[in-house]
Amino acid sequence: MPAAQDPLELVARAREGQQRAVAKLISLVENASPQLREVAAALAPHAGNAQIVGLTGAPGVGKSTTTSALVTELRARDLRVGVLAVDPSSPFSGGALLGDRVRMGEHATDDGVFIRSMATRGHLGGLAWATPQALRVLDAAGCDVVLVETVGVGQSEVDVARLADTTVVLLAPGMGDGVQAAKAGILEIGDVFAVNKADRDGARQTVRELKNMLHLREGAEAADHGTGTEPWTPRVLSMVASRTEGIDALADAVTEHRAWSESSGALRERRRRRAQSEIEAISLEQVRLRMEGLRGGSALPSLADRVLAGEIDPYRAADELRAGAVDV
Amino acid sequence: MPAAQDPLELVARAREGQQRAVAKLISLVENASPQLREVAAALAPHAGNAQIVGLTGAPGVGKSTTTSALVTELRARDLRVGVLAVDPSSPFSGGALLGDRVRMGEHATDDGVFIRSMATRGHLGGLAWATPQALRVLDAAGCDVVLVETVGVGQSEVDVARLADTTVVLLAPGMGDGVQAAKAGILEIGDVFAVNKADRDGARQTVRELKNMLHLREGAEAADHGTGTEPWTPRVLSMVASRTEGIDALADAVTEHRAWSESSGALRERRRRRAQSEIEAISLEQVRLRMEGLRGGSALPSLADRVLAGEIDPYRAADELRAGAVDV
Repeated sequence: MPAAQDPLELVARAREGQQRAVAKLISLVENASPQLREVAAALAPHAGNAQIVGLTGAPGVGKSTTTSALVTELRARDLRVGVLAVDPSSPFSGGALLGDRVRMGEHATDDGVFIRSMATRGHLGGLAWATPQALRVLDAAGCDVVLVETVGVGQSEVDVARLADTTVVLLAPGMGDGVQAAKAGILEIGDVFAVNKADRDGARQTVRELKNMLHLREGAEAADHGTGTEPWTPRVLSMVASRTEGIDALADAVTEHRAWSESSGALRERRRRRAQSEIEAISLEQVRLRMEGLRGGSALPSLADRVLAGEIDPYRAADELRAGAVDV
Repeated sequence: MPAAQDPLELVARAREGQQRAVAKLISLVENASPQLREVAAALAPHAGNAQIVGLTGAPGVGKSTTTSALVTELRARDLRVGVLAVDPSSPFSGGALLGDRVRMGEHATDDGVFIRSMATRGHLGGLAWATPQALRVLDAAGCDVVLVETVGVGQSEVDVARLADTTVVLLAPGMGDGVQAAKAGILEIGDVFAVNKADRDGARQTVRELKNMLHLREGAEAADHGTGTEPWTPRVLSMVASRTEGIDALADAVTEHRAWSESSGALRERRRRRAQSEIEAISLEQVRLRMEGLRGGSALPSLADRVLAGEIDPYRAADELRAGAVDV
């Protein structure tokens, strides 16, 4: 089926809800295939509908369970849902991982759910590079909500917040002294905080500490949220995801945040900043790749020789290299 | 004295051996002043004479003592010497540091010695960015040898080897089990290895282990050294720098390495690679800075809006941004 390789055709099929077309498109963007630009152009007119919801939290906090339960809840509300599970430490990637099938077993046959795992290890910029394109695919495929699940280690939780319209931070009681969140800076990034495993000892204390710390944050950051309307007050929820207790409240909070961010203008501002960062990152990467390409040619060696001969200084050489690297 | 600010005038004075002009030029390049490009252009015709000698080693190995003794030895051989002490961890910088004056006390009044400390913390690329320009100043000022002294922590020892024509690795006995060097990968970067504090227990063993390990390296890397002539066999020396014992042999080894690298063509190859990396780094940094400059303008926000509206994809937006960022 050579026609299926045509990006416009693939995007059309993805918009009809064909799982294989969605999977193929994500593979194309993930592997930075030569067709990447065609794919991006074909996706462009169909982007911006989905709410991108970032889900992050420390290992063991119950992210997979929460994601699966939240998918069920959103499907019950008749929403189309995409799931992008991003693992910054895994070298494995692709849509056919056994782990996903097992984990998301109940959703595997649901045509209204798109599930994909992506590894970002070794990718330039980790999450930042391939993920936005994969999100555009799921967005164009008609998802109302796309959940981006990533393990909260190192930089990845901040990265996921940058990609998301709404960020959900998962915590669990007894995973460190008090709210271990504070150290990692996740207090600043969460729009919704969900304390999972709320049937365990210490859950109430975790909720209380979290609320106290968020109260401190509020004053300092209110001005940063929205333009003109009431600022968003981060929600703090308790749940037991494994028994789907509190998942409806989580879905509510996510939906409320979308409504607030649309009416306040905060969504538009977040997306503008995001688009700007993405355009900048792509530009720099393109220049870098072209310069790398020049290494095989004669331009850079000959400029280096002229610098060594004292004919030009390295700044002037850089001007000439840049001109050569940038002109198409 | 406004005339002293003119880069051509400053370079002329530096070439006459005026310490203040040299200090001023290094400050200009170090602070990336607006005159940086004029300075670089004025320096260009006068570069390439000095042998850049990198000196690296773990803290406590005796780098400062060795540097000072080596300066004395090279001065006795009627060579003009520059010293650039690079501290990747220090926030302090500049030529007037009390530490330098004290440490290099005996050379402070010698017109044939130029001494400078540079901090690279916070600089983009650390050593890689400001140091090459500072080396050009000392080179243009007529130094025959420029010693770049840096503490061997993390990436800095590899960086200094990239900048240098000749790399001297200092070791001391009893600073770890056997030759701790192996772990840090310094075996690959050294042209001359000097085991300092050779009057201490274990010095012979350190020398022996070092020679064994270098013997293993030899076969694998011989092809990488020079073009056509005999490969360079790394020298392994013993010394007691605090009593200046073995410093003459160190100076000999450094001089021999220069002679070998000139006749073999290795020097030219190293410098070509270096110039290429530098030109590339400057180009990328220039593009990055210009893009940063565009953030204040209307180009990037308006491109982002067009992406959000689905009019263009981010790759096309990146093309347009790049075109705007690069055209002068």
